[in-house]
Amino acid sequence: MSSEFGRILRVSVFGQSHGRAVGVLLDGLPAGEAVDLEELQSFLNRRRPGGSPLSTARQEADAPVFLSGLEGGVTCGAPLCAVIENGDQRSKDYSELSDKPRPGHADYVAWVKWGGQADMRGGGHFSGRLTAPLCVAGGIAKQILARRGVFVGAHLAAVAGVPDRPFPLYPTAELFAAVAAKPFPVLDDGAGEAMRAAILAAKEALDSVGGVIECAAIGVPPGLGEPMFGGVENRLAAVLFGIPAVKGVEFGAGFRAAELRGSENNDPFAAESGTVRTETNHAGGILGGITTGMPLVLRAAIKPTPSIGRTQQTVRLSAMENAELAIRGRHDPCIAHRAVPVVEAATAAVLLDMLLEGNHGTF
Amino acid sequence: MSSEFGRILRVSVFGQSHGRAVGVLLDGLPAGEAVDLEELQSFLNRRRPGGSPLSTARQEADAPVFLSGLEGGVTCGAPLCAVIENGDQRSKDYSELSDKPRPGHADYVAWVKWGGQADMRGGGHFSGRLTAPLCVAGGIAKQILARRGVFVGAHLAAVAGVPDRPFPLYPTAELFAAVAAKPFPVLDDGAGEAMRAAILAAKEALDSVGGVIECAAIGVPPGLGEPMFGGVENRLAAVLFGIPAVKGVEFGAGFRAAELRGSENNDPFAAESGTVRTETNHAGGILGGITTGMPLVLRAAIKPTPSIGRTQQTVRLSAMENAELAIRGRHDPCIAHRAVPVVEAATAAVLLDMLLEGNHGTF
Amino acid sequence: MSSEFGRILRVSVFGQSHGRAVGVLLDGLPAGEAVDLEELQSFLNRRRPGGSPLSTARQEADAPVFLSGLEGGVTCGAPLCAVIENGDQRSKDYSELSDKPRPGHADYVAWVKWGGQADMRGGGHFSGRLTAPLCVAGGIAKQILARRGVFVGAHLAAVAGVPDRPFPLYPTAELFAAVAAKPFPVLDDGAGEAMRAAILAAKEALDSVGGVIECAAIGVPPGLGEPMFGGVENRLAAVLFGIPAVKGVEFGAGFRAAELRGSENNDPFAAESGTVRTETNHAGGILGGITTGMPLVLRAAIKPTPSIGRTQQTVRLSAMENAELAIRGRHDPCIAHRAVPVVEAATAAVLLDMLLEGNHGTF
Amino acid sequence: MSSEFGRILRVSVFGQSHGRAVGVLLDGLPAGEAVDLEELQSFLNRRRPGGSPLSTARQEADAPVFLSGLEGGVTCGAPLCAVIENGDQRSKDYSELSDKPRPGHADYVAWVKWGGQADMRGGGHFSGRLTAPLCVAGGIAKQILARRGVFVGAHLAAVAGVPDRPFPLYPTAELFAAVAAKPFPVLDDGAGEAMRAAILAAKEALDSVGGVIECAAIGVPPGLGEPMFGGVENRLAAVLFGIPAVKGVEFGAGFRAAELRGSENNDPFAAESGTVRTETNHAGGILGGITTGMPLVLRAAIKPTPSIGRTQQTVRLSAMENAELAIRGRHDPCIAHRAVPVVEAATAAVLLDMLLEGNHGTF
Repeated sequence: MSSEFGRILRVSVFGQSHGRAVGVLLDGLPAGEAVDLEELQSFLNRRRPGGSPLSTARQEADAPVFLSGLEGGVTCGAPLCAVIENGDQRSKDYSELSDKPRPGHADYVAWVKWGGQADMRGGGHFSGRLTAPLCVAGGIAKQILARRGVFVGAHLAAVAGVPDRPFPLYPTAELFAAVAAKPFPVLDDGAGEAMRAAILAAKEALDSVGGVIECAAIGVPPGLGEPMFGGVENRLAAVLFGIPAVKGVEFGAGFRAAELRGSENNDPFAAESGTVRTETNHAGGILGGITTGMPLVLRAAIKPTPSIGRTQQTVRLSAMENAELAIRGRHDPCIAHRAVPVVEAATAAVLLDMLLEGNHGTF
Repeated sequence: MSSEFGRILRVSVFGQSHGRAVGVLLDGLPAGEAVDLEELQSFLNRRRPGGSPLSTARQEADAPVFLSGLEGGVTCGAPLCAVIENGDQRSKDYSELSDKPRPGHADYVAWVKWGGQADMRGGGHFSGRLTAPLCVAGGIAKQILARRGVFVGAHLAAVAGVPDRPFPLYPTAELFAAVAAKPFPVLDDGAGEAMRAAILAAKEALDSVGGVIECAAIGVPPGLGEPMFGGVENRLAAVLFGIPAVKGVEFGAGFRAAELRGSENNDPFAAESGTVRTETNHAGGILGGITTGMPLVLRAAIKPTPSIGRTQQTVRLSAMENAELAIRGRHDPCIAHRAVPVVEAATAAVLLDMLLEGNHGTF
Repeated sequence: MSSEFGRILRVSVFGQSHGRAVGVLLDGLPAGEAVDLEELQSFLNRRRPGGSPLSTARQEADAPVFLSGLEGGVTCGAPLCAVIENGDQRSKDYSELSDKPRPGHADYVAWVKWGGQADMRGGGHFSGRLTAPLCVAGGIAKQILARRGVFVGAHLAAVAGVPDRPFPLYPTAELFAAVAAKPFPVLDDGAGEAMRAAILAAKEALDSVGGVIECAAIGVPPGLGEPMFGGVENRLAAVLFGIPAVKGVEFGAGFRAAELRGSENNDPFAAESGTVRTETNHAGGILGGITTGMPLVLRAAIKPTPSIGRTQQTVRLSAMENAELAIRGRHDPCIAHRAVPVVEAATAAVLLDMLLEGNHGTF
Repeated sequence: MSSEFGRILRVSVFGQSHGRAVGVLLDGLPAGEAVDLEELQSFLNRRRPGGSPLSTARQEADAPVFLSGLEGGVTCGAPLCAVIENGDQRSKDYSELSDKPRPGHADYVAWVKWGGQADMRGGGHFSGRLTAPLCVAGGIAKQILARRGVFVGAHLAAVAGVPDRPFPLYPTAELFAAVAAKPFPVLDDGAGEAMRAAILAAKEALDSVGGVIECAAIGVPPGLGEPMFGGVENRLAAVLFGIPAVKGVEFGAGFRAAELRGSENNDPFAAESGTVRTETNHAGGILGGITTGMPLVLRAAIKPTPSIGRTQQTVRLSAMENAELAIRGRHDPCIAHRAVPVVEAATAAVLLDMLLEGNHGTF
């Protein structure tokens, strides 16, 4: 068991990058939920490489086909299976790699684990392509959440050390929609220009860059989550680290909180119109693992794409001797911008699961 | 379900800070494992407040009593239950807090979730005291792991922004033991002095500070972990965020990786005596969620203790009006140093669980 | 992981028959639920051997001590741990058995699994004594269910082939209470006399007998359970087979349904006062794994107690040679009557878990 | 979460009877396992209706297409997804049923649970058609098990009260193969003739009959399974009750054990060539939930097909008034014979999962 998560809503992702198809199985979706397929496709398109010089040249329609669970555009209570066929594959690009693992990739550990049996063409089951079915799950979850006033949005908080400005204390659904509609998902377009320049400079140098994604959820009721290991942070982190290239996850002030004093980091409570809010949100909307009702804020660190054109040091496994490797094929000089909807998808799917657990099937 | 984790080895923590006892249930420990109770007590003592001016004045013996699963000092295959009685409680110190939630604490979310029913004396089930039984689990796991050549160690990587030096590329069991034996768990004692001064300065100011803990595991075989959501990072993070005050978790270069180029962050492979190692370890010993055989390295961010003596803004819940709060009682100006063995414990328990699961696929 | 069950409400049983204590951990109980300790003790007493010639002479008070989760007699939302100390042990009675496994007991499989490490005194973790903490869990669950109009009751449907009459189509809470109050839990006291005679005859012959327990739950709303592997039958059976000596579980007409025609076994639907009921209940209140709203009815087969005074054939494991065994010690000539509350307990705990999942924490 | 089972090997079934496809996702299969597709198809064909007068006239090729996890006929370690397209559907046959639930079917509970949203055409996700993908899972599991000397076989133990003879004390792989090759899966062909006559008589009478399936597994090593709720019986029963129409599950002597004395039911141990066997097998190869090494034997009760041609009493849900129903469409007068490979499939999948988990404790 590796490619599944969730308690009430089980999300299971399958497929290999150059296999017949990738897909997702959702068991536990409430019945009677309409899925707007156009809106879903728009969400999926945000992840697609799409012909920009910032991304790989691989072209995929990423159009999901629903094998079960969705009848007349509405969920029917049975497990939903959606499949995306793999189209534009060039597996020959990868033939050399079966014996020479790419630094920073899963090639070597797959070889240790499964020997020659792993289908590692295009990264196999470790490929970023697997985030397409995850986005099908998350895109459906986002629609169900939005119908109940819960909205999830994200932006590129940084690329190659160039920062965007952070979300405001109270981000809105409109702000999320505005960022999502941009070709480059930042709040500050000037920062976005600098980021794009950094990506293109890396590409020019046959190199790559990473970034940080900030994601927020608004409308999450207070009281969601459990103490200790059942907290919102625990469950979100457990899924976010399943997105390829994520190497760090933090909530609210996160690692910066470690440098603050308690008097700075504590968020003062304030009564307002009969409810409680906090005047700052260093907690990222979570105390003791449980939501406070303030916006939930998290950040995920995306490492630079390991596939780079530069010659790298590796080993020839068959001979167990040192070797050089220059990766050919089509690669992204940065995947952080394409990972923005993926972080939203993971966040939305986990929140929906937790909300369904709070009031199973009919929250 | 909230206070449990693990697949083959299930770890369940129970108790409230000012209840009768705290404890842990371990279901799935291998049979025939000797538990050195003296060594376990030494490990637990590293977490105890222990009379230092850097910690709370609360005194607890933290001596576990084994109700089941351990016969003649050896595990017998049945679930192991260990209980630590709560001794030095002063619940009256907390009476005011039931109506005025402490900023940065779980008081407010517990009130939302359970109304007046929650036993929040001393933090209740959210208290840092619950890390004592977690350390019983982790201390036993550490002994079982060490017997098989897997060692887990940690140090304070930073307090209040004052950094310790990082673990070397290849930390050793001896280094782990040396740090564990210090009264203040740092590699660089000069840095430790500066950290202690920062803690005492915060205490003087009726304030608190946070820190970062770096933890490493050596001897972990390559190939441990699963793709996507079953990875080592996913499962460690899911538990580490269960330690009170942890707000961020990263592996290897973590958030810093997001600022590097691929050519810098990728760890070159090198053949050495018939095995494969990497010349750097930005991956923290994990690629694609699976161990590479290099040291596993993670960092957890600990927020400043929310209990501070300074007057803070909060609300009186019964009246839903703003109020001031000055927390009395005994508190830690910093808990990061006491959390060092806790991070080790969580890491060891997860690794043991995954190693126990590990042989699957080849029965 | 072996001694746990449940999704929202996790029930974990621990202890060995002759260890320090047995106990149970309940994680996920709703907060604010009063536990009537006298009523709980009455329920536990139904399982106790209690000095009757029909049962073992071992005496145990079976008085649970609550270490956590229950404050002022009310659940507080934190995991509840209850412990029952083991008192009247005579481990020397079992010394011979460590090398000569008792036919029908778990001695041999424990030896295979854990070698000499298992603590098999008195049956160890396999002992019927472990049903005492299960009854603590079930007794609490029964109180929580009763408060919401769900009642669970059981009776001895047969002992040694002597049948009791079955529950009527609509059993009532009063009927359940009446059976529970009897020293021998049958509907037809004449049948009960014949059963007791059969037990005493077996005891006289240094032998033992088994029986069948019928359990019903009323007030369960229709629509509980999920298709396929998440059905009520699946989840109940998974726990019922954890009661020592259970070798069969059936729902409604069960194995007899296999001999009926569809026209006989199908329960006709009928409209009544705006709701739907069935005119018979061969389905045992469950169709497609999901409750119909009719009484839930199940039966569990209890094998004859394997510990008998007669000389039996076994092997001396150390020499791997045939040997004879005459079991000394105190044993039950029948455990089916003592298992009646245990079947209720398991049923109640599973139903509570499923109802909590339907509307987590506040159904 | 409803249509999934397994710990190391997760089996997830999806699809509705008249939807686009049914299928199965297997996460956790070992890599490097060849799948003989012809043998798999032969196994699936045993479940297919196939034109006999004993079964429905619905025709389905039941040819699985592999979307992932199987490359070059060999498992690659990634999740395996197999899909079977639905072909010969006649949904108009079912239009009346949406308002008039069929007695003995899940129509009513689906209406309670999901209102009009459920896709109940042909039984929807509750249909026996879902056992086709379960057989894909089980057929693959059987091949992997056979390669390691574990064989699973089954036969019709009874239909309409007509008994087959039971499996011998030591069934063989050859015996399993011989029964599987028969058009009607019994040991005693004379009994089979009488069963077929009973089925045809019921069909003639517009009625249906049920049956009992006996399933055995040989080659299972001793020591598999865990005490209490992690036993082999628990985990098999939890899955077997997911097969539509199963209303009872028993192991070894099962319900008959309740009528035996301990001296009759206990299986005497005997040393033989350095290993231990039992001279009888009333335990069905399981003591204390753990395998003894003797053949594992279980029986599942299959109720008579609820779809019958006779007029039945039901309710018109829209008006909540009594109504009559005469089911048209194509139905099986008995499904017990088609369920024989399904019981094998469930048993094999659970045993493979447990064996994959098996090495735990000794890494």
